[in-house]
Formats: sequence, structure tokens, C-alpha cells
Amino acid sequence: MLAEIRRYKKIPRIDLSESTGISRATVTTITADLLKEGLIEEVRSETPEKDLRRGRPKVDLKIRGAAHHVVGIKIANKSLSTVLHDFEGIQIADHEVALEESVFEADALADEVSKAIEGLTSTAGLSAEEVSGVGVGIAGTVDALQGFVYWSPSLHQRNVELGQVLEDRLGVPVFLDNDANLVAVAERAFGLAKENSDFIVITIESGVGMGIVIGNELYRGNRGCGAELGHTKVQLDGALCRCGQRGCLEAYVADYALLREAGISGRHKSVSKVEDLLSAARDGDSVAKSIVDRAGRMFAMGLANIVNIFDPELIILSGEQMHSDHLYASEVIDAMRNSVVHIDKPGPEVVIHKWGDLMWARGAAAFALDEVSEIAITGHRENAQ
Amino acid sequence: MLAEIRRYKKIPRIDLSESTGISRATVTTITADLLKEGLIEEVRSETPEKDLRRGRPKVDLKIRGAAHHVVGIKIANKSLSTVLHDFEGIQIADHEVALEESVFEADALADEVSKAIEGLTSTAGLSAEEVSGVGVGIAGTVDALQGFVYWSPSLHQRNVELGQVLEDRLGVPVFLDNDANLVAVAERAFGLAKENSDFIVITIESGVGMGIVIGNELYRGNRGCGAELGHTKVQLDGALCRCGQRGCLEAYVADYALLREAGISGRHKSVSKVEDLLSAARDGDSVAKSIVDRAGRMFAMGLANIVNIFDPELIILSGEQMHSDHLYASEVIDAMRNSVVHIDKPGPEVVIHKWGDLMWARGAAAFALDEVSEIAITGHRENAQ
Repeated sequence: MLAEIRRYKKIPRIDLSESTGISRATVTTITADLLKEGLIEEVRSETPEKDLRRGRPKVDLKIRGAAHHVVGIKIANKSLSTVLHDFEGIQIADHEVALEESVFEADALADEVSKAIEGLTSTAGLSAEEVSGVGVGIAGTVDALQGFVYWSPSLHQRNVELGQVLEDRLGVPVFLDNDANLVAVAERAFGLAKENSDFIVITIESGVGMGIVIGNELYRGNRGCGAELGHTKVQLDGALCRCGQRGCLEAYVADYALLREAGISGRHKSVSKVEDLLSAARDGDSVAKSIVDRAGRMFAMGLANIVNIFDPELIILSGEQMHSDHLYASEVIDAMRNSVVHIDKPGPEVVIHKWGDLMWARGAAAFALDEVSEIAITGHRENAQ
Repeated sequence: MLAEIRRYKKIPRIDLSESTGISRATVTTITADLLKEGLIEEVRSETPEKDLRRGRPKVDLKIRGAAHHVVGIKIANKSLSTVLHDFEGIQIADHEVALEESVFEADALADEVSKAIEGLTSTAGLSAEEVSGVGVGIAGTVDALQGFVYWSPSLHQRNVELGQVLEDRLGVPVFLDNDANLVAVAERAFGLAKENSDFIVITIESGVGMGIVIGNELYRGNRGCGAELGHTKVQLDGALCRCGQRGCLEAYVADYALLREAGISGRHKSVSKVEDLLSAARDGDSVAKSIVDRAGRMFAMGLANIVNIFDPELIILSGEQMHSDHLYASEVIDAMRNSVVHIDKPGPEVVIHKWGDLMWARGAAAFALDEVSEIAITGHRENAQ
């Protein structure tokens, strides 16, 4: 209910009943409780006068922004991005911290996170105690319900109870998840999937990530390690991947894969940045073009496999790096469409969403908002951490 | 609630409250209605005397078998398998009909289905009017909620409202779905997934099918054409598939794919049955072995992609054909396990379920039971047909 009000920003009770499928009487009872607890508030409706006369209600409900504050944080390679949101979901402050290392002991990472949050809250003139929950996005394999990290490129150790470590340090509830999952949460909360209950988000950064939303819920798999699109195999005994296996999609489309190919060519042997290779391809260099084109065709194949499995209504190709244009190209989307099972009904909508680097952190904040709302209403958290 | 009672066969109210998470008071109210409508009945508990003294209830609830009868039917290549189940889910009769053709006009297919059901009900001494619903499984791409067949190897036309055609002919509600989806329903209802809310069923027959169950629900995709594992691509620009595209999993593991390879080899040029090729491989023939081994490795790759995407707790390799042993082999399962993302927690359980050819039809009956239960309780069907 809170999530629904938050999504609409302002909504009359009668529309809330319609959008949730809950009876008007029950909506009235529940919202009375939420009003009493100060989680929501009534505001004057902005419905035009003439509609009011036709029996439209005079007040809307909205989330009371000051009820809670949450922090969203993305642990990236050599940086921490943080955002502060009020309970309405409005972003109040953001703060970015550069890190000297990219791989940490859990305690040292907790120190950095704690410092970053202090920096953020002091920017906003808030004390750290006024934060009700912290959402954390991290690359790697994460069991979100347990706050458990099987492995992450940001941690020296495997099998770290990072959620607990952070919670002990910060003294507030911490909600941890894989970063691509949190982009899916962000797309649902304030991105391009506000109206979609089922969709797939694919992120292209140093790796290929995926978030799956089915029936309004993130699908996380049994151990929290599904949605590994980057390590689905596109070639039997294919190119070596950084994960140690062969033929993974990432081994054909990631930056390192393109540079590996460039290293073979006499002409591009000294290319050290993917941007340079892409620019050579755009300028018509045949070898560079061959390298970049194959990455696109392999990516189309990986995308097609997702469509053949999920038949989603919407796929969002979501990322902050502008230089992945070659993977978002219309030729790639067309190749994907040519590789899926054909029926006489159009396939999924594919949209490209390029955003600033705060999207990851905003997804973590949206996750924290959902979980803090759950705690505010039920008194306990959904996850078992 | 009915499905839960059906799954347990007999269950006291108190356990029903626990297994459904519905309060005891509500369970009492709901089951009182079900008793009044004659959908369930009370039977003497089989709980041992000593447990009864410890306050265990004296009566169990069970489905009243005579309340409804449903038919399940599988439209196969040149045959129709049908089963008759009572409302408890007990199989009362089965009936198989050979067909002279394998591809039909919708009306002609409806004739055959109608005749097969008459044969089935007369075997059981029932009139066709005593059937409350018919579940139908058919190969192809099906929008189950609409009873709409985009295409099927059993139909000359594409885009057929087969559910409606059958319903007009039979005069009872018809519930149509893709046959592999119905195997997943069967595994959940009376197979190896009775206790699993999330699992994947993979069927290997002339093609490779898949059924996805998430949160106790079949996942059917947006247009009803997801779960197309057989047409996920395992090789860029790979072997030609019967679907017209290249590199599909089926183009490497289906019978026709193995025979295509055999046709290249001088030694096996005249082999016309896969069984002969498999037997040659078992006898150590190196070419036959090379053909069969690659099929296994490609199948392992397709399976690994499913694990990397869904991280399921259970995969059931389900089929009636004994000759697909090479795809169920432990080397194949091991190869799959070596190709998934590794974390320090065991991967999915993989079980092999070989069954008689009535499994398809029983899945269709289980689907009909669920839908007839829905109608009995709510007065309308879930789907929009």
C-alpha cells in the first residue's frame, strides 16, 4: 500500500482501491492506521474544480516524507556512491567518495561505508541516527534475504556475512543485494518500468548483469545466484572468461574480451582502451569493426535466449557507460528479434536507459524504502538476516 | 485450499491452517462452505490412537471424488491419450486412440478429440455430460489464458482459437496449454515436485520442452511463448534447425539432428533410427560416439544456462522416451555442474523422471482439476477464453 502511494506520489483513496484491488472499506481502514502512525498524510487534491463537483474526493493521500530517511549506497570499483532519500522517495542529498583500493576486508569496507554515510548525512544536515535503513548494492553473488555475499570483486574473502558486519557497524537495518537487482528495483520505483509487473533489466558495465521482476517481485533464485546472464554460455568450449570457464557471454562482450582480440591484431596491438577500438570501428577500420560486430552478434544471441525463456513484455538495457553503444545498436536489437521464436504477435518492447552513476545507489535506496516500509507496518523485516 | 487438500489426500484442519498459512478460524469458515457445497467431505482420521489423545483432531478432510470428473488429453503425433480423473485426482480410466494423420484442420481435430472423450467416458461407464472440464495439452506455442494456438505441429493453420473450437464442440469448459507446461503441472500435482514451489521441468521428446514453476504458479510469459529452451541458441550461426533459424539447442540434440550427422558418415549413412546410432555408440563405434557425445555436451550447455538464469532448487528431466539416456547421463549432468557459476553452496538437485505416455494426459487432467476447482469456488474461470 505504501509502495503504491509512493509510486503515484498523490492518490485519492478511491483510486488506491482500484490500483491495489483492495476494497474501499479496507483501504479506508488501512490508511487510517497509516495516518495515525504518521507514515502518510492528507493533502488537498489537485483535481480540477469541475471534476470535484462530479464527486471526486477533495483530498489525496501522500507519503509523509519526514517519517523516515533511508540511504542507498553502491559499492563500486574504487568508489562509493551514496544517496539520501526521504520516505516519499525524494532524493535529498548525494555524495561520492573515491576509494584507494578496489578490494577490501569486510571490516575495512564497513569503515569506508560508515564514513561515506557520515559524509552524506552531514551534507544534508542530518545526524546518522536519523537514518532508518541502508540499502547496499554490491557486485557479485549475494543472498539478499540473508545479507550474505558468496563472493564479490570488492571483497578479499568469500562467504562473508556482509549485511551483519555493516549492521553492527552502522547500528541501523542494512539491506544488501546484488547491484543489478537493485537497478531493476530502481526501474520499477522511478525508472522506465513503473507500470510493469514483469520485466527484465540488463546492465552492461564491466560485466553483464541482469535483474528479473516477475509479478512485481524480484526473482532472486534459490541461492541468490540466478540472473547470471553474463556467464550463460554462448559457445561450447569457447573463449576463456575471467570466471575461469569457457564460452561465457562476457568472454565475448566485456571490455577485456574486446581488448584481448585487439591484442591479436598487429594494427591494434597497442590499443589499451575500448573507446579507441570503438572509435576505430566507427571510422571504418575493418579489423576493429570485425571485433566490435562479433561482440554485438554474441550479445544479440544472449538477449534472444532471454526472450525465448521469459517472453517478457519489456526489456530495459540499462547502464551508465555511454561507450556500450555498440551493444545497444539497432542492428543488435534486430539480430535479437531475428533469433527468437516467431509468432504473429510483436515481441518484447526493448528500451535503452542511459543514466548517471547515481542510479545504482538510487536503486539501493528504493530497496531500503520498501524494506523500511515493511518494518514500519509489520514490525519485522522481510529478510532473515 | 482445494488444491492443498488434494495434494495431501487427507488432512486435518489444523495442518491445513499450517500448510496454507491461513488462520484456523478462516480455514474453519472456508471448509464449512466447501463441505456444504459437497466439494470436500470429512473422514475418520488415521492418526494413531495415542496421538489422538494428545489432542489431535478425530477427522480429516478430503476431496469428495464424486463431486466432479475431469478429462485430460494429450494431442500427440498420430495419437490421442486421454485420462479420466475424479475430483480427488484419482485416475478412473484411460483410453488411447491412434490417428491416421498428424496434422489437422481445427474442426477435424475437434472431431477426433470428441470421439476420444466419448470412448474414454464409455469405458468408465460415464456419460460425456458428467465431465466438468477438459484439459488439453498440445505441442507448439499456446496462449493458455486465451485458449489460443499461435502455431502447433498438430494444426495446418496458425493462430487458431482452438480452446473455443473445442469448447463449442464438447459443450464443457476446455483448458488448453502447451504440453511441457502440463508436465510441470503433473510433477507438482502427483510427481516429483509435490513439495516444491519453484522448479524447472525439462522434457525431451522429439523436441526439448520446458515448464517453469515460480511461487507455485506456472510461468507462461507475456504472450505464452516463453520457456522455449529448445530454441535458445547454443552456437552463433550454428546448425540449421527445423524452425528455420540456426544454432538452436534442438538442432544439436533432437533425433533429426543426430540422424543428420549420421548421414554424413560413410559408416552410418543408412542409419534411419536414432536407437541404432545410440547402440553403435554404446558398442564403442567412434563416429557414433562422437555424434552422441556432442549432443550431450550441447545439452549440458543448455541446462547450465537455465541454472545460471534461474538458480532453481530442483530440475526434473522428465520424459517418456527411454532412448534419451545419453542426454540424462551422469557425464551430462556433471558437465552442466561444471558450467554454472560456482559458489560454496550446492547447486540444484537434478532428478530424472521417466514415465509412461499417460503423464502428458495426466498433466492436462491436473490442470483441468485446478481450473474446475476455481470455477466451483469463484463461479468463473481464471482464464479469459
